[in-house]
Amino acid sequence: MARTAESIARASKKAFEASQLVGSEERVATLHAIRETLQANKGAILEANKKDMQAAQVQVDSGKLLSSLVKRLDLATGDKWDSMLQGITDVANLPDPNGIVSYARRLDDGLDLYRVSCPIGALLVIFEARPEVVVNIAALAIKSGNSAILKGGKESAQTAEQLSRAIRSALSTSSLDENYIQTVETRDEVTSLLEMDEHIDLVIPRGSNALVKSIQHSTRIPVMGHADGLCAVYLDEGADTKKAVRINYPAACNAAETLIVHASLLDSVWPQVAEALLSNNVELRCDPETLAALAPLKQTSSNRIKPSSPADYKTEFLSHTLAVLSVPSLSAAITHINAHSSHHTDSIVTENETNASVFCRSVDSAGTFVNASTRFADGFRYGFGTEVGISTGRTHARGPVGLEGLVIYKYMLRSQAEDGHIAGEYGAGEGKKRFKHENISTTSVPF
Amino acid sequence: MARTAESIARASKKAFEASQLVGSEERVATLHAIRETLQANKGAILEANKKDMQAAQVQVDSGKLLSSLVKRLDLATGDKWDSMLQGITDVANLPDPNGIVSYARRLDDGLDLYRVSCPIGALLVIFEARPEVVVNIAALAIKSGNSAILKGGKESAQTAEQLSRAIRSALSTSSLDENYIQTVETRDEVTSLLEMDEHIDLVIPRGSNALVKSIQHSTRIPVMGHADGLCAVYLDEGADTKKAVRINYPAACNAAETLIVHASLLDSVWPQVAEALLSNNVELRCDPETLAALAPLKQTSSNRIKPSSPADYKTEFLSHTLAVLSVPSLSAAITHINAHSSHHTDSIVTENETNASVFCRSVDSAGTFVNASTRFADGFRYGFGTEVGISTGRTHARGPVGLEGLVIYKYMLRSQAEDGHIAGEYGAGEGKKRFKHENISTTSVPF
Repeated sequence: MARTAESIARASKKAFEASQLVGSEERVATLHAIRETLQANKGAILEANKKDMQAAQVQVDSGKLLSSLVKRLDLATGDKWDSMLQGITDVANLPDPNGIVSYARRLDDGLDLYRVSCPIGALLVIFEARPEVVVNIAALAIKSGNSAILKGGKESAQTAEQLSRAIRSALSTSSLDENYIQTVETRDEVTSLLEMDEHIDLVIPRGSNALVKSIQHSTRIPVMGHADGLCAVYLDEGADTKKAVRINYPAACNAAETLIVHASLLDSVWPQVAEALLSNNVELRCDPETLAALAPLKQTSSNRIKPSSPADYKTEFLSHTLAVLSVPSLSAAITHINAHSSHHTDSIVTENETNASVFCRSVDSAGTFVNASTRFADGFRYGFGTEVGISTGRTHARGPVGLEGLVIYKYMLRSQAEDGHIAGEYGAGEGKKRFKHENISTTSVPF
Repeated sequence: MARTAESIARASKKAFEASQLVGSEERVATLHAIRETLQANKGAILEANKKDMQAAQVQVDSGKLLSSLVKRLDLATGDKWDSMLQGITDVANLPDPNGIVSYARRLDDGLDLYRVSCPIGALLVIFEARPEVVVNIAALAIKSGNSAILKGGKESAQTAEQLSRAIRSALSTSSLDENYIQTVETRDEVTSLLEMDEHIDLVIPRGSNALVKSIQHSTRIPVMGHADGLCAVYLDEGADTKKAVRINYPAACNAAETLIVHASLLDSVWPQVAEALLSNNVELRCDPETLAALAPLKQTSSNRIKPSSPADYKTEFLSHTLAVLSVPSLSAAITHINAHSSHHTDSIVTENETNASVFCRSVDSAGTFVNASTRFADGFRYGFGTEVGISTGRTHARGPVGLEGLVIYKYMLRSQAEDGHIAGEYGAGEGKKRFKHENISTTSVPF
């Protein structure tokens, strides 16, 4: 029976609503049951995984797919299977983000208000062709109390189907509805689901810039994620050379795309940083000032030193390429970053405490770092235990998002007065009651 | 010179970025300066206000406008002027929502991470024809560190222009840019501004359901607000009659639109509640069960007791009308509310502690109340000191939103190690460093 996007979305919201009284312990038990069911079905899952990999290899052989993708698909090699299962236990062991009181006030005698964290609702999560992500997101959703609809990359479809079957089977014997975690397989289904703003409460897209942008532009549902990850490192006037060299070490994820050099460093620190970068096969796209300062290096590395174009300062290279420019001041560096970066993570290399503070407060990004590489922007490194993704949005959650980013709060108000409480009794006028607004010291709701 | 929407949006973001180092005291000083400038320009402002009111009166006389609007426009009568100015001082005196550390971790020796609250960015606030709201929103924006573009109802345009001129004049002598608070006058400008998602970070629409809905559906910028305010009161099996009668007292704002009656109360509590409502001129639209139970009252109040249609349970009446239905159980009441209410505020009347708890946890609304009227859902009543609005969204802020709803956070990371810190040093492998992830006890960033 073909399910429509609407029936999937409705079922997800229904499963969410039905789960409101399922406690933390029951959720943890469900996670353990999923781990066991996956283990019991390992054979069928890896069989499907082999088929996905064979189909991908055909695509690779005909030049339609990158060979790195096949490796990403593989669930059988090394410790990937075990670490996928261990991931479920790790999430199960994290603190419950729900039920935490962040504001509690006695509005008046016998009238107590509690702001308590609670799940958001039904999530739609779209991600690349990495089959273990199905399990990881399912675990995060169950732990945080949100129902979820998952869509992975099509190259992992057969593995995803087997994983999803096992999860569903474990759910059917748990306190949660079997539709608590659903998977869909086609882009058309996603397109239709993005219109279900009445039922779906948050969309989390992970993957390419183009994918994330297209989702952000085609739904009224709030979207959490980041399209670009354009990070900058600024070498301040008083930068330490060794730190400047180390922090610009090239790397894949969240590494800097732009290097900003204070003019006073053009003939001292900058050539040394450039030399280290060049020896690591980084291509440097330089503005006239930073280019001129590299004249002595030109002879040995001319093919990797190039003049920059304006577009280079707006480009996430996804390769060992760095756009470089010189600025006359800290404030010029900040202005450049605020105008060009994707408000993800930016770092200053400086020995000057005041400049560090000004940079961190003035750069309008999710992460502002001092003498540390931008690659620290990660939920595990931050100590969250897990990461849903990184958000460059300015509302709800910003930067690396852990379980806390999957909850919101509600207000519970309880009257224990003999006649209940009505708002009309309170006011500034004569004969009206006044609010007391006293803090209540509690971390949980007492009823 | 006509300003384009883009130049207005850019100027707003620029004013925001330039304000990052403006401290709490300077913001408070700016608020006091605005108060003084408004007082110094009282004559011109009230002159403009008189013109707005005269123009509105012409519209009322020709039947094009409700007469209640003229009263709302009036800034001169009673204590409206003084309380508008007092409002600025009140906001100035509230605690600064920025600079508060909500997570601080020592990732490793000499590598400290701080999550610190900070403003969101540039706001676009659209509201009804109440001139004092211009001043109120300007004060909230300045206090919370956000720049703002304001658009009030067109009937208050001349007053708004004078208020805005005074605010701009006060800003020009302050630490903030004079474009920190801007006003626009036409719907066309708003339409264009709603496309400026690169520069504007949050839209806050206040006003009619139609206005809020149309804004929610026509922008990619996050929107905070509520289109509907459909609230329900559920009279549980063990409801106390006096509480049931009191809590359903009819009122204008946030009062309940739906009354749900447990079947066991049909012949006992329900007729008494109905009698009280009818004597307050409330029209009751009843399902067959609750209608039948009112047969004895039909003779005296037949014109205000009517059978309901399904649409009545999805309608915000904005009048003294209540849709009533009977349910066989608490869980049926919860299902009805989750399917029909606007997830704003819902209340249970009960003497049963377990049912109260189940209701509060299972009803998926911003406010879930026990023996208290839904009208308590208000930022002042909750003790926030002020209210930006009420949000029925599920991300960022939910329910009544105070200054805290106008901030987000950023992560600041500082290395104090001799060589700085790079992420590549850390990992599970041999020779790699391990993260320590120790809590740091602090409420502010030390640099």
